[in-house]
Amino acid sequence: MNLTERLLAQSRQCNSLLCVGLDPVKERLPQAMRQQADPILAFNQHIVEATATWACAFKPNIAFYEALGPAGLETLRRTISFIHEQTNALVIIDAKRGDIGNTSAAYAQALFDVLQADAVTLNPYLGRDALAPFLNRPDRGALILCRTSNPGAGEFQDLSVAGRPLYQIVAERVRTWNELGNCGLVVGATFPEELATVRDQCPEMPLLVPGVGAQQGDLAAAVRAGVDRQGERILVNVARSILYASEGPDFAAAAAQAAEHYCWAINDARATV
Amino acid sequence: MNLTERLLAQSRQCNSLLCVGLDPVKERLPQAMRQQADPILAFNQHIVEATATWACAFKPNIAFYEALGPAGLETLRRTISFIHEQTNALVIIDAKRGDIGNTSAAYAQALFDVLQADAVTLNPYLGRDALAPFLNRPDRGALILCRTSNPGAGEFQDLSVAGRPLYQIVAERVRTWNELGNCGLVVGATFPEELATVRDQCPEMPLLVPGVGAQQGDLAAAVRAGVDRQGERILVNVARSILYASEGPDFAAAAAQAAEHYCWAINDARATV
Repeated sequence: MNLTERLLAQSRQCNSLLCVGLDPVKERLPQAMRQQADPILAFNQHIVEATATWACAFKPNIAFYEALGPAGLETLRRTISFIHEQTNALVIIDAKRGDIGNTSAAYAQALFDVLQADAVTLNPYLGRDALAPFLNRPDRGALILCRTSNPGAGEFQDLSVAGRPLYQIVAERVRTWNELGNCGLVVGATFPEELATVRDQCPEMPLLVPGVGAQQGDLAAAVRAGVDRQGERILVNVARSILYASEGPDFAAAAAQAAEHYCWAINDARATV
Repeated sequence: MNLTERLLAQSRQCNSLLCVGLDPVKERLPQAMRQQADPILAFNQHIVEATATWACAFKPNIAFYEALGPAGLETLRRTISFIHEQTNALVIIDAKRGDIGNTSAAYAQALFDVLQADAVTLNPYLGRDALAPFLNRPDRGALILCRTSNPGAGEFQDLSVAGRPLYQIVAERVRTWNELGNCGLVVGATFPEELATVRDQCPEMPLLVPGVGAQQGDLAAAVRAGVDRQGERILVNVARSILYASEGPDFAAAAAQAAEHYCWAINDARATV
């Protein structure tokens, strides 16, 4: 199955479009986890177990693991291995990589083969040929940045190219890169109008939608703007609002409750499309 | 000293604009290194010792280390530590990172504080606010992708924005981000005309110029196009042509000879500007 097929199958199976972001920072870990040999691994395992019922995918952002040095990358490797053993959820490494030739091939090896991601996020600025080692993998997914969720996203992404903003040109080009059905786009929840435009441009492509929760994107507006006509093909990422729903000993139960809340809030919104 | 000042001081000190790319792959290591406990670390140490006289900077691309898993990141950390102990050369981690908010801060921590890079390469697509954790560091450098060296670089970078190619808009914006004198641009040697345009736009900014050697950029043309009026402010990166100058037991001596050759070829070219 290619990325699109896997995402559709998994989201139907668990009746959820929720992606749980695994972006832990040591300072916010519950006290009980801090005694563990690998506090972040232990925390991630509890979060994965608690939220798996409601999660179509998990998305660790590799930056938080690299900030911990070489041991952090091992924590990420073990976290992903745990997810694959315990769940059917997709694992997306948010890496926003983009490099050229043999360097790009080294990244694909690092993310797909060493760390065993099902999909990764990529940056389009270097063009299609730079991303070929990712796009040539029929069994893995490439989610390409289109319109990001940060306040200054428009600095380049909204520049007008032949009368249209750059992010729309990116969406259009990525559509032509999607020969294997293994491409998707990243569009922030913080910009529902842009999200709706991208969905219109690319009816068949999965969209990864970050920016809900701590970044305060309007969940219902984003879901309505992002889903396809069958109310599918998006993944709504929520990280901090689930991970830190409680910082007490009940953190896992609170994370489960938050994940359930988001799963249903997304389903309620897509029911009204 | 900020990045620009450090680069000028170091390039004058060693009379070299050469940056040695440390992008080792296991399959190409000399036989003698393969017996070592950490073959890539041992190889890097030999290359650094052999080429330090001719190198203004060393530039490991982190992709090659991540492809080796968590241990690879430790190899990179030790390589950089060795360079700082043994030389005055700048260490640039080629990472092409670009993410937002607290994630971008985690990358800055990983690259500047854990790995101890003097400068890193970054991707501009997400805009200035996304790169703030890098740009706010007066003691470290941010080299932002402008016109890359790959054949398909123009797919987005040459799109016309108000009559000018996007890469020129990026150059212009990065110039406004350079309040601390800690920014530079990455422009491939494979496109000397674009390089000359960027130099005209940004007379004060350092340019990192990859694409010479294995990528077959014309060295003399790139140097003439890239230097400022004093024949300075560029770093010409060469990786494979130095690292693998010989794959026999004389690899370090051959690397030294290749580095010396490139150092002088660059100096010859800038003498004729």
